[in-house]
Amino acid sequence: MNIKITGSGSYIPDIIEKNEDFHQHTFLNTDGSSIEHPNEVIVDKFKAITGITERRYAEDHLVSSDIGAIAAERAISDANIDPEELDYIIVAHNFGDVKANTIQSDLLPCLASRIKYSLRIKNPKCVAYDILFGCPGWIEGVIQAQAFIKSGIAKKCLVIGTETLSRVVDKYDRDSMIYSDGAGAAIIEATDEEGGILSHETGSFTHDEAFYLYFGHSNNPDLDKDTRYIKMDGRKIYEFALNNVPTAMKACLDNSGVDIKDVKKILIHQANEKMDEAIIKRFYRLYKTPMPEDIMPMSIHKLGNSSVATVPTLFDLIKNKNLKEHSISKGDVVIFASVGAGMHINAMTYKY
Amino acid sequence: MNIKITGSGSYIPDIIEKNEDFHQHTFLNTDGSSIEHPNEVIVDKFKAITGITERRYAEDHLVSSDIGAIAAERAISDANIDPEELDYIIVAHNFGDVKANTIQSDLLPCLASRIKYSLRIKNPKCVAYDILFGCPGWIEGVIQAQAFIKSGIAKKCLVIGTETLSRVVDKYDRDSMIYSDGAGAAIIEATDEEGGILSHETGSFTHDEAFYLYFGHSNNPDLDKDTRYIKMDGRKIYEFALNNVPTAMKACLDNSGVDIKDVKKILIHQANEKMDEAIIKRFYRLYKTPMPEDIMPMSIHKLGNSSVATVPTLFDLIKNKNLKEHSISKGDVVIFASVGAGMHINAMTYKY
Repeated sequence: MNIKITGSGSYIPDIIEKNEDFHQHTFLNTDGSSIEHPNEVIVDKFKAITGITERRYAEDHLVSSDIGAIAAERAISDANIDPEELDYIIVAHNFGDVKANTIQSDLLPCLASRIKYSLRIKNPKCVAYDILFGCPGWIEGVIQAQAFIKSGIAKKCLVIGTETLSRVVDKYDRDSMIYSDGAGAAIIEATDEEGGILSHETGSFTHDEAFYLYFGHSNNPDLDKDTRYIKMDGRKIYEFALNNVPTAMKACLDNSGVDIKDVKKILIHQANEKMDEAIIKRFYRLYKTPMPEDIMPMSIHKLGNSSVATVPTLFDLIKNKNLKEHSISKGDVVIFASVGAGMHINAMTYKY
Repeated sequence: MNIKITGSGSYIPDIIEKNEDFHQHTFLNTDGSSIEHPNEVIVDKFKAITGITERRYAEDHLVSSDIGAIAAERAISDANIDPEELDYIIVAHNFGDVKANTIQSDLLPCLASRIKYSLRIKNPKCVAYDILFGCPGWIEGVIQAQAFIKSGIAKKCLVIGTETLSRVVDKYDRDSMIYSDGAGAAIIEATDEEGGILSHETGSFTHDEAFYLYFGHSNNPDLDKDTRYIKMDGRKIYEFALNNVPTAMKACLDNSGVDIKDVKKILIHQANEKMDEAIIKRFYRLYKTPMPEDIMPMSIHKLGNSSVATVPTLFDLIKNKNLKEHSISKGDVVIFASVGAGMHINAMTYKY
C-alpha cells in the first residue's frame, strides 16, 4: 500500500495589496520610536529580502474556514471522490476564524467542523479536527493522515491549511508586510499506485526557540497593551532555520533512499525568498552538490506568506501549470518542507 | 504490543466558586430580557439538573498552558519516565491561552510548544502539537497517540487536556455556572503488558449540529457585539447526546469484544449530571441490562465542567483513590466517553 495525494485545491483571495499600498503606513520600531528611513526605502529593502511585491487579503465577509472550505471543495473535485467517503478532515491554522475588524479568534466549533458543515457531509464517521502547529501545520496534517492510514483507521483524508494573517497583523510593524491570506487543500489516499509519501521528518524546537514567533502588543505604544498581534524575531528565525531546516530535510531524504540528484522540485514554505534560497543552498551543500536551477518554485512574490496555506497552494499551482517554468510529472520526486512558529520544522519526500 | 496509560496527572485550580457566589449576578435571557425568578431559584434549578455545587477557577496569573504543564509534570512523574524520551506532546484545548480580564485567545506558539518549553525538554524529535476537538479533545488525542504508536512513528506520548473556561464565559448567561478550569494529562505507551486500549470510536456530527456550541455575544445587549463568549443550545445538545452517545459507546464496546457485564466503570465527560445519567441509562438499555450502581464516577459536583480536562482528571482522581467509593484495579475494563462542541463524540474501551 502507498499513500498519495490524489487531488488538490487552493483559494487565492481576491484583494491584492501591493507594496506601494504600504507607503502611507506609519512604521515604528519595537520601542515605539520612529524609523529613520522613508517608507519607500523600508519597502524596497523589504522587497529585496523577502521577494514579496504584493500579497493577497481575503474579503471582509470571509473568514479562514470559508476560504478553507473553497480550497477543500476544489481538492475533492480534483480527486473525483465522494466526500461522504472521507475518514478525516484535518484543518491546520494558527488563529481560528478572525472576523474583519475584530480581535478575537473564533475557535468554537473547531474549523474542521465548520468546513465539514460547509461541505454538507453527513457521514459522522468522518472525523473533523484542527491541528495547531505553526506554518508547518499542513505538512504535519498530511503526516498525521499517513499515520491514520497506516494504522488502519483511515483510507481517505482531506488535509487543509487555511489562514487569514491580515487579521492579526500590527500595521505599525514592518513585518506586517510579509503576511497574507490563503488556503490550500489535498486529498490523501491509500492506493496501489506506485509512489506517494516515501519518508517524513518532524522536529519541535522549543527549549530556546518556543517564542521566536509570538503574540505581542503593537509597536505603537498608544494602543491597548492587551490587544495582541503576530510578532516575530526575524533575525533569530533566520539563523534557526538555516541551522536546522537543511539537516531535517537531509534526514528526510536519506530516509527515503532517494538520491539527491533525483530530486526534481523542493516545495518549501514561502516565508522569505532570501531565507528559503539560503536553506536550499545549504541543503545541497550537505550533499556537496550545487543547487540546481529551477529546483525551488516560489509563489511568494505575488502571494506573500500565508502560513499553512503556502505549501499546498504552491503544489496546486504547479500541478495545474499555473506557475510558469515549473511542472511535475509522474514519477518525479518532490520534497515538501516547512518551518514556523513553535518552532516546528517538517519535511516529506514524495514521489508524484 | 499493547498500548496503555502508564501515568496520569491533573491540576485542580485553587479558586473555589460556589453556587452562592452567583446569587448577586445579573442573569438575562438570550433576548436581553430579565429572568422572572430570583437568582436563588435559578441557582437551585441549575444545581438540580447539572449536579454542580461549586467549580474551580484558575488564579489570575495562570493560563491554560501553565496548568497543563503542571498536570503534565505529574503524569511524567507518575509514569516514571524520562521526558526526553517522549515522541509526542498532544495538547487538547478549545480557546488557547486567555489571560485573565482579556478577550483574546493566544495561540502563538501552540500550547504544546509552551508546555514542552515549560517541561524543559530538549529533544527536538518530540513533536508538540495542539488538537481542537471540543470537549472530546483529550480522548481524541489518546486515539491519535495510539495511531502514531501503531503506525510505528511513536512509542511514548504525553496527552494533555487543559482549559480555562472561566475566561470565556458570559456572566449574564445562566450557563456560565457550568464552566470551570482544569487540566489533566496521561502518558500513553507501547507495552508488552496485558490490557490497554481495546477499541475506540469517534464521530463528528456537523450537518445539523455544528453550531450547537458556538462563540456568541453576551445576553447583555449593552455589551459590545464583537466580544464573544462560549454559548450553547443546551436543549439541542441534551437531545443530541442522548440519541448518539449511547450508540457510539455500544459500537466501541462491541468492537472490543468485552461483555457489558465486565465493564467496571464508565468515565464520561462531566457535562451535566442529569444528562450523563440519562446517557448511561440508555447505554445499558441498548444491552437490556440494568445500569449498575457506582458505574459512573462523577467529579462534576465539586469541579464543574472543565471541558477537555474532565475525563483525564476523573481518571487521575480514581487512580489515586481521591474519589470516595470508586476504585479501579488491574484487569478492570473501563469505558471512556465524551461529547462536545463540534459536535464530536468519542469513546474508548480500556483494560486497566
